[in-house]
Amino acid sequence: MKVDVSKPILDRNERMAAENRLLFDEHGVFVLDLLASPGAGKTSTILATIAALRDRYRIAVIEGDIASNVDAERIKAHGIPAVQINTGGACHLESDMIRRAVDTLDMAEVDLLIVENVGNLVCPTDFDLGEHVKVMILSVPEGHDKPYKYPNIFARAEAVILNKYDTMPAFDFNEDDFREAVRRLNAMAPVFPMSATLGDGVDAWVAWLAERIETQKRAGSDT
Amino acid sequence: MKVDVSKPILDRNERMAAENRLLFDEHGVFVLDLLASPGAGKTSTILATIAALRDRYRIAVIEGDIASNVDAERIKAHGIPAVQINTGGACHLESDMIRRAVDTLDMAEVDLLIVENVGNLVCPTDFDLGEHVKVMILSVPEGHDKPYKYPNIFARAEAVILNKYDTMPAFDFNEDDFREAVRRLNAMAPVFPMSATLGDGVDAWVAWLAERIETQKRAGSDT
Repeated sequence: MKVDVSKPILDRNERMAAENRLLFDEHGVFVLDLLASPGAGKTSTILATIAALRDRYRIAVIEGDIASNVDAERIKAHGIPAVQINTGGACHLESDMIRRAVDTLDMAEVDLLIVENVGNLVCPTDFDLGEHVKVMILSVPEGHDKPYKYPNIFARAEAVILNKYDTMPAFDFNEDDFREAVRRLNAMAPVFPMSATLGDGVDAWVAWLAERIETQKRAGSDT
Repeated sequence: MKVDVSKPILDRNERMAAENRLLFDEHGVFVLDLLASPGAGKTSTILATIAALRDRYRIAVIEGDIASNVDAERIKAHGIPAVQINTGGACHLESDMIRRAVDTLDMAEVDLLIVENVGNLVCPTDFDLGEHVKVMILSVPEGHDKPYKYPNIFARAEAVILNKYDTMPAFDFNEDDFREAVRRLNAMAPVFPMSATLGDGVDAWVAWLAERIETQKRAGSDT
């Protein structure tokens, strides 16, 4: 029964996501959907990514939260356009929310749009927003067993950032186990150890992201 | 539209929750629903609670996860009856899942039933399972700003455990800000600093829980 109820919502979401993607491609905007638990470091990772790539790409950010606008304010303080979406109670963003947020941005002035989804490892996984890539962050304090408990998101993400890597000594985190569990669910996804607030490990991540952006650009100009 | 879709599911859930609560009260079983993000330390907190209260109460555990049975196995290894619920994709437990799990336990042999809900700060908040109390855990690495971003769960919980308290020096966590934010949302909820894996701070938490159990018992024997 729950499948019957959610199916029309997902279908409608897929249609709007396809429209969003057309709009993004028309304007040559690459869209990254960033997923993680609360407090895993989504906003810090976005700030580190902005610092590394702002000279190369014009960046804008959409912040999704149940409530508050603290994340959008943090981004704006760095001179980057940011739109806050408050979902009320909803545990994920949907493509119509993205459309409304995008309508407030000037797409002609954006190369890279980063979407910070609502913080949890479950609901955002199934919702296509029209993005080009979904990337997830797991932070070390959450524990190395999370791929077993939340397999869908690990299977779906095209890259996994292992954040708060500097706190490894304080936690019982088995990195080999973690990497093996990720590999089983998703043989293609690279794992990037990172300490976003310190800037450690950011280079490898942004090199991967820039490569994805350039690949998308080439695909776009071929058509 | 989303409200219309979810309303009948919530109504049906409420009815079954009321039935569950009758069943629990009939058998004198106190039920704790424990909510937190992935990796905040729900299972460790349950293990610490078991260690502190197992001589006083007969305890059983229901473990809710998207997938895997690692948590139920961890509990069973301590000689405590545990039932694993795998929700598939669902981001929270519902009262009919609790009913099916309870049917596999001998309620006459249980004084305290601990339910570990699926790890996230959003979806489980609105779903009554028939429990007597909802308690949430926030772990220090998640950050002190979480009450602003996930106000509903902080408003709903009757107590807040601040776990991984020993890692405070490794994180930029402002405890005063956190406590003030919790107080504004929920003036009645005590905050229990704890390091569940080390056993620090467990005494105050279990004293509060035992008091709630005894209060419930007295209310039950009065009727």
